[in-house]
Amino acid sequence: MTSDLLIRNVRPMGGPATDVLVRSGRIAAMSAGGAEPSIPVLDGAGELLLPGLIEAHTHLDKTMWGMPWKPHAAGPRLIDKIETERRQRRELDIEPERQSGRQALQSLRMGSTHIRTHIDVDTEVGLSGIEGVMRMRERYRDRIHVEIVAFPQSGLLVRPGTLELMREAMRLGAEVVGGLDPNAIDRDPKGHLDAIFGLAQEFGRPVDIHLHEPAELGGFAMELIIERTRALGMQGRVVVSHAFCLGMSDRDYARSLIDQLARERIAVMTTGAPSRPVPPVRECAEAGLVVCAGSDGIRDSWSPYGNADMLERAMLIGLRNNFREDEEIALALNACTRGGATVMALADYGLEVGCAADLLIVPGEVPAEAVVSRPAKRTVVKGGRIVVRDGEVTTAA
Amino acid sequence: MTSDLLIRNVRPMGGPATDVLVRSGRIAAMSAGGAEPSIPVLDGAGELLLPGLIEAHTHLDKTMWGMPWKPHAAGPRLIDKIETERRQRRELDIEPERQSGRQALQSLRMGSTHIRTHIDVDTEVGLSGIEGVMRMRERYRDRIHVEIVAFPQSGLLVRPGTLELMREAMRLGAEVVGGLDPNAIDRDPKGHLDAIFGLAQEFGRPVDIHLHEPAELGGFAMELIIERTRALGMQGRVVVSHAFCLGMSDRDYARSLIDQLARERIAVMTTGAPSRPVPPVRECAEAGLVVCAGSDGIRDSWSPYGNADMLERAMLIGLRNNFREDEEIALALNACTRGGATVMALADYGLEVGCAADLLIVPGEVPAEAVVSRPAKRTVVKGGRIVVRDGEVTTAA
Repeated sequence: MTSDLLIRNVRPMGGPATDVLVRSGRIAAMSAGGAEPSIPVLDGAGELLLPGLIEAHTHLDKTMWGMPWKPHAAGPRLIDKIETERRQRRELDIEPERQSGRQALQSLRMGSTHIRTHIDVDTEVGLSGIEGVMRMRERYRDRIHVEIVAFPQSGLLVRPGTLELMREAMRLGAEVVGGLDPNAIDRDPKGHLDAIFGLAQEFGRPVDIHLHEPAELGGFAMELIIERTRALGMQGRVVVSHAFCLGMSDRDYARSLIDQLARERIAVMTTGAPSRPVPPVRECAEAGLVVCAGSDGIRDSWSPYGNADMLERAMLIGLRNNFREDEEIALALNACTRGGATVMALADYGLEVGCAADLLIVPGEVPAEAVVSRPAKRTVVKGGRIVVRDGEVTTAA
Repeated sequence: MTSDLLIRNVRPMGGPATDVLVRSGRIAAMSAGGAEPSIPVLDGAGELLLPGLIEAHTHLDKTMWGMPWKPHAAGPRLIDKIETERRQRRELDIEPERQSGRQALQSLRMGSTHIRTHIDVDTEVGLSGIEGVMRMRERYRDRIHVEIVAFPQSGLLVRPGTLELMREAMRLGAEVVGGLDPNAIDRDPKGHLDAIFGLAQEFGRPVDIHLHEPAELGGFAMELIIERTRALGMQGRVVVSHAFCLGMSDRDYARSLIDQLARERIAVMTTGAPSRPVPPVRECAEAGLVVCAGSDGIRDSWSPYGNADMLERAMLIGLRNNFREDEEIALALNACTRGGATVMALADYGLEVGCAADLLIVPGEVPAEAVVSRPAKRTVVKGGRIVVRDGEVTTAA
């Protein structure tokens, strides 16, 4: 469902004020003045106009958003978190359809119009997460766009039956094949990546691989990903999420990895994690790498933090990368907008005439000010319809 | 000016619900039930009761809060920032009394009841910053407590005349002697620290030294600070702000510094800076070190970030230190409450009977939830008077 709308007096990316005419959910014209009394009018009050924010990496199926506070219980290792999560999923009522809906609406409230979410597929939950999130996204399809990555959180080869479930998830409608730490979890980097890329080939789908593995170990996994991307002609269809190894101390090796990623058009996703080495966003961008951004888990058994605000995410990425100038902060915001759109292959994303009218209107002189101040007052337009007004989801939506 | 107040149904630090009776600005009793119709009543609605937050390190005199957006202009080095600031102070109208008042009210809105602020003293601004902030704090004295550190931002020995101005600042009413990177700025660590500690002795005042110097260079400066603290018997009266060197890769050397700081009861201040090495808060706390926290500069020529929210600061410290459990997040919040109170020598700070009724009431099950969710809805009580209600400064105040 799309709409007509005239947005008066907004400043695209902080530029001069203009009106935006939306016809059938798309930007039809941008110019000041001219009455259009026959369609709804939204007064932008001279505020910033940004394209809708893109949450390019989260886990909608397992958030405890809106549930009673649950103290963090997992130990420090990755495997502790995976096992605690499986246990909590049995003990607590973390119902994927309800919980994913809560987080999706919170994302929308904060200005995100698109979400790429990883959804657990394993021999315990089977496809229930995928099915629940698919029902949720159908319900909210007029408000927010959700793309699903089938994600073998508990391991692919170490849990026989998972690969077949992953195949089933792709048949059901997951759009992206997920993977995870091929050395650390499956203990078989070649086997894991061959299986992941095999599925991607089988279904003609892109891949998005969690790679927490640090330093030279992560570098090795990344080399294997690069080799497969090149061999299979999957340029522009592969994301390495987290990619902590790009923050390793051997800067020459990291640089050579960045150059190879750029050559194969492999994107990286960063959260700007303050306690881990992270991909250097400026260096990645200068090398031509697509950088997207995500909240990762929000209020779940992995982490108690997070509020689904991608303006705040841009701030955290800015702080982590020591970005202070407007142009630097714009780089961080770009990861939370156009970087994510590129990764999700959204052909009609942006503020140009012809683009889908998926928009965020927020107070601020320039984008950098919106990032550092993260105003509560936000208006979100999806396909030309006002879906959030002053930070609240509209009842009409 | 202090008041009587009955606060009904709040949960101190997330514990069982109680009423808090305030008499003449102090906590007189904590217990449930009992009508007191003759004094004002505040309904806490079962929310969390925290002691007022403590902003233990900021720069009130130079914030551009509330002024038009000014893109960051300084280069990457410390000296670039110092010089850009001196230039911008001439070119922009960053009037200390007005600007410090704007930030102080923002701090109050976010729940801080006490601020330690460093105020520039140099041969260009002289004492105008000190005087302006002193006027501001007099005006707002019933709402927020402000302590002033005389701070030789542009260097002490390299700018002849600064030491005499520092002396004058202490005579005017600054409470703390400030210092700054004794190697990197004054190029004379012995001379700088002897002058700082000399002033402290002359006025019987504590010291608070900015130490951005990294790794072994910062360690050397820290050793000199420890030696002087011990020799002059200034235990419990010295803060090392930032103390980035405690995050150095030589963990054995860092550990020996932490132990020496603990022995001389020297506190450290951290912002949880995501792009720098930082003091490891858990290790410091376990060694018995007092850790306090601050926003540092907010929306100034040093950094465009910051919103004076010490709950958010606790979150940033938690993220930087990889704190996930409630008890770990409580450590981060402790730096933003009791750690700061210890550094500011606030004898009557806390939630015990007899303490000053300087309080924050905020939604949340436990303190950790308040830290990760940073609710906008905050009620602040200062000396028994409601100075902020639901995030807005009360007109009565």
